[in-house]
Amino acid sequence: MMSPRKQTLKFDKPVYIESTGTAVGPMEGAGPLRHTFDQAYDNLYCGEDSWELAERRLMQDAIEHCLKKVHVETERVSFMIAGDLLNQNITANYVARALGIPFLGTFSACATSMETLAVGSIIVHGGFAQRVITATSSHYATAERQFRQPTEFAKQKPDSATYTVTGAGAALVSNRPSKVRIESATIGHVVDYGLKNPLDLGSAMAPAAAHTIVTHLEETDQQVDDYDLIVTGDLSRIGSGILRKLLEEKRVMFKRNYDDCGVMIYSMDQPVFAGGSGAACSAVVSYGYIFEQMKKGKLKKVLIVATGALLNPMMIQQKETIPCIAHAVSLRAEV
Amino acid sequence: MMSPRKQTLKFDKPVYIESTGTAVGPMEGAGPLRHTFDQAYDNLYCGEDSWELAERRLMQDAIEHCLKKVHVETERVSFMIAGDLLNQNITANYVARALGIPFLGTFSACATSMETLAVGSIIVHGGFAQRVITATSSHYATAERQFRQPTEFAKQKPDSATYTVTGAGAALVSNRPSKVRIESATIGHVVDYGLKNPLDLGSAMAPAAAHTIVTHLEETDQQVDDYDLIVTGDLSRIGSGILRKLLEEKRVMFKRNYDDCGVMIYSMDQPVFAGGSGAACSAVVSYGYIFEQMKKGKLKKVLIVATGALLNPMMIQQKETIPCIAHAVSLRAEV
Repeated sequence: MMSPRKQTLKFDKPVYIESTGTAVGPMEGAGPLRHTFDQAYDNLYCGEDSWELAERRLMQDAIEHCLKKVHVETERVSFMIAGDLLNQNITANYVARALGIPFLGTFSACATSMETLAVGSIIVHGGFAQRVITATSSHYATAERQFRQPTEFAKQKPDSATYTVTGAGAALVSNRPSKVRIESATIGHVVDYGLKNPLDLGSAMAPAAAHTIVTHLEETDQQVDDYDLIVTGDLSRIGSGILRKLLEEKRVMFKRNYDDCGVMIYSMDQPVFAGGSGAACSAVVSYGYIFEQMKKGKLKKVLIVATGALLNPMMIQQKETIPCIAHAVSLRAEV
Repeated sequence: MMSPRKQTLKFDKPVYIESTGTAVGPMEGAGPLRHTFDQAYDNLYCGEDSWELAERRLMQDAIEHCLKKVHVETERVSFMIAGDLLNQNITANYVARALGIPFLGTFSACATSMETLAVGSIIVHGGFAQRVITATSSHYATAERQFRQPTEFAKQKPDSATYTVTGAGAALVSNRPSKVRIESATIGHVVDYGLKNPLDLGSAMAPAAAHTIVTHLEETDQQVDDYDLIVTGDLSRIGSGILRKLLEEKRVMFKRNYDDCGVMIYSMDQPVFAGGSGAACSAVVSYGYIFEQMKKGKLKKVLIVATGALLNPMMIQQKETIPCIAHAVSLRAEV
């Protein structure tokens, strides 16, 4: 007999986040989490000639900060697992070219952050590598041009829109015991409630987050209260309200231990509509603020639920709805 | 001390290809391997209203054929690992939505076929699942429009161009012993020799294939002669000639045991320029003809080296060169 399908991978052998690195743009560097980032640029070009090059710079910076903190050379990293929002994953591809690390490209839209961490964990857990670097990025201007309109059009947006985080986050997954252990990963399935508005992705993604959270808790036999913090990636103010309601219907009640990276990264007076989004949103908040709090022992157990809208402009033109996915990774501080 | 970096993952626990499935378009169905495909459509629309829907149809067909042959319901498949060439991996995303299997999106351009097989193998090897479905696809018309010009422009092409295979291939990776065992996977790193011509990808990809083949043989302590067949994914006639020369410089000499899926899939009198390409090229040849030959015991040991040009039209416009990658999977018949 086959056992029933399990979406959660439990890591019973040592898998740790040995180090993290982050680099962000000006809006994030002016936000409430500014002191938790390794680097913040004061304009969107990040010293480069194009926005695509800027995003590439951010991912490379994040990886370099990550490795430098623990004095690990790139030659000692076995694999790079990375992805981003740009067509053909160009940020990750060209950074992988620069670093020369054997490379697996991944894509789950803004859930790519936790997909890379999950795949990296599986490889380390399997004994195939001692160290794997995982990374993801996004950039306000590259994302607007590709998914909506070029920013030069200055098109007005509704309050349901989000502001794509400019930044990149990297995590070094390792079998060497350190302060933050990766306990498990729950791989989401595609959920589509029929929404079509690319200016309200929080609402589209909330059901995927709800599915993954409920599955994770069920399969690991845990309650919401077992976590000091459950964060979603980029549901923003609107999507996170919908998530609360969807979970209440399933009798899963958040108390004060829920937040959303897209809400955390900006202050209320910043012009970001409903909050932050993008693959970097969950990455820089998790690998900056959350990782710091865990190392200090202020957060013991955290579930990061990265949310992705698998949005494609041509599919929207062809009247399709937006499929969404959420991948979760559970972290525990061993301090 | 850290051990030196190893790009090859050796699967010492049982990991098998339990079943495969293929579906192709009209050009492939008229080629020399036509009897090895599960299904061939007589036109590029495959009974759908758009080329994007046609490609989606092909991937879903391939997966359905694959599962049906071994009477496995989708509910009994733990994860789906898939990717394609279209922006945001839309073929894989929407098929994953239709099937409801927990999903990890992957992208290595035309090397996606072996990336999905490698990642699926790692998950099964780790004991996280009994069965994982892997799939990839490409379509002549969707690829031309996205990467070059819409086919309606009828732009003439040089002989170095290739013809994107319309099709999809799926493999069911399982821990149940069957006739074809997955021995190991070698994950490539990005190689870029400075080529910029999107109408000669075979030349651009050959160095990546050479690197991965040499690394695989070194790390597994094997010679070319240990394989009955080494196939590259889609180097076509021009790229495979370059590969031979690059390998000769490293004293690796192919005899009669080398071929290229892009050369095998079409006959010389078909109008396909230098041969076939696309993520489906290596997938349908491997999961059709090669898998059949292995099950019959006619091929005992095969190395499939999927080659990918990480081409992005905007990067070419920005004067960038084309980064390439190759991932290899080693198969052994246990018959």
